[in-house]
Amino acid sequence: MIPTHATVIIEYCPKCGWLLRASWLAQELLTTFADELYGVTLHPSEVAGRFTVTLADEVLWDRKREGRFPEPKELKQLVRDRVASEKSLGHSDRKE
Amino acid sequence: MIPTHATVIIEYCPKCGWLLRASWLAQELLTTFADELYGVTLHPSEVAGRFTVTLADEVLWDRKREGRFPEPKELKQLVRDRVASEKSLGHSDRKE
Repeated sequence: MIPTHATVIIEYCPKCGWLLRASWLAQELLTTFADELYGVTLHPSEVAGRFTVTLADEVLWDRKREGRFPEPKELKQLVRDRVASEKSLGHSDRKE
Repeated sequence: MIPTHATVIIEYCPKCGWLLRASWLAQELLTTFADELYGVTLHPSEVAGRFTVTLADEVLWDRKREGRFPEPKELKQLVRDRVASEKSLGHSDRKE
C-alpha cells in the first residue's frame, strides 16, 4: 500500500528541454491530487533521454519503456489507482 | 554546509491558487541550478496563506515573514549562496 501523502518524482532530461513538460505534468497531478499527495518533485536527470514518473519507488511511467510521454489522463489514473482508488477523475476516467 | 544535490521545497497554499506561481519559481530555479540541486518539490500546504521556500530545513523565504512573494532573482541568490557560492548568476546577480 502506498503511504498517504507520498511524493511523485518526475525525473526528466534537462538537456533535452523537458523541464517544461515535467512541470506541466506536475501541475496536472497537483491540481487533481492536492489532498492526496505530499507533493511532486521535479528532478533533473543525469541520464540523457530519461523521462520517468515514480511513486513510492514504483516506476509508473518510463518514456523508454512506453516509447512515448504520458498524457495527463494516463498519469492521473495510474496515481489514482494507488493513492485514492475511490476517487473519480471525471473526464479523465477511463471509459468502462 | 548544504549537502550537494539538496532538494528545495516550495510549500504553497493550493486554495489560494498559488500552484502556478510555485511551479513557475520551481522552473526558474531548475533552469539555473539543474546541476546543483537534486530537484524542487512542489508541496501543497494544509495551512491557508502559506508560501515558503525551504532548502535543507532552512526557510529561505516565508511570505508571511517577508510580506510578499519572492522574485526569481532573490530566490536564486539565496539558493546560490548556499549550494554554489562561486556560481555567477549573470543578470540575476546583485549589483555590488
